[in-house]
Amino acid sequence: MSFKPDPKLDLVLERLIDVPVELVWKAWTTPELLKQWFCPKPWYVSHCEIDLRPGGRCYTVMNGPNGESFPNTGCYLEIVPNQKLVFTDALLADYRPAGQGFMTAIVTMKKEGKGTRYTAIALHNDEAGRKKHEEMGFYEGWGKALDQLVELVKKLR
Amino acid sequence: MSFKPDPKLDLVLERLIDVPVELVWKAWTTPELLKQWFCPKPWYVSHCEIDLRPGGRCYTVMNGPNGESFPNTGCYLEIVPNQKLVFTDALLADYRPAGQGFMTAIVTMKKEGKGTRYTAIALHNDEAGRKKHEEMGFYEGWGKALDQLVELVKKLR
Repeated sequence: MSFKPDPKLDLVLERLIDVPVELVWKAWTTPELLKQWFCPKPWYVSHCEIDLRPGGRCYTVMNGPNGESFPNTGCYLEIVPNQKLVFTDALLADYRPAGQGFMTAIVTMKKEGKGTRYTAIALHNDEAGRKKHEEMGFYEGWGKALDQLVELVKKLR
Repeated sequence: MSFKPDPKLDLVLERLIDVPVELVWKAWTTPELLKQWFCPKPWYVSHCEIDLRPGGRCYTVMNGPNGESFPNTGCYLEIVPNQKLVFTDALLADYRPAGQGFMTAIVTMKKEGKGTRYTAIALHNDEAGRKKHEEMGFYEGWGKALDQLVELVKKLR
């Protein structure tokens, strides 16, 4: 069953990108690659751990140019290679409740011509959560990160 | 990878029961059956919905003898028929964050002789969560519910 976003609660970034699905998948699931594209510059990821199984932990530390440091822990929920990756910060490793939860992300990729139809959906608990994420710069941030992903994987071909 | 409970954070009910795994699975995944055993009497479940897929919603309404009514919404995470069922209240349908989360449950069943080695683990975010659940009567409550499950499915054979 494919998920239909709720415009009141969810944010969606959809774009046709000119790199193949296999490289998009690789960029999302390889720590050394993810570190290079996941944060819009000048922010950067200093640390990344990916335990790629349902219930596995995802862990990144995002850093800002003025010494900011934000660790993020989440949990992978669904892993369909080259198609779909779902994770949430509402859970920790082995599905342990995080006590709170800001968002679940559903990232899908589908071959289209020589490129990829890329969709990233952020699901929030309520309208305030969606609004906060939008104000934090969801579209610009996830868009810039995707630009960086495309630029990076083009060098891998 | 099988999960190792953390004694500081998790509660575990393990028991050998004299009914086959297939019936235990059926009792956990059939709304009309779950309603009959899930709450220790005189509490009862008035409503139960089971969308049995990863990301599917589980919904029950528990009622007390003095008119208490507690709706519970959760999300299925892993479904391995006759072996393992994982769900959490940290997520709603389609993995949407619930905004909070009290526990994740990992229920496993394994054929042993003519019966079933039954294990239910409740994972909490912190020690306070585990303690609260223990004080709410985890062992007695889940134990009585399991007695009711066994009694019920014996009638189905």
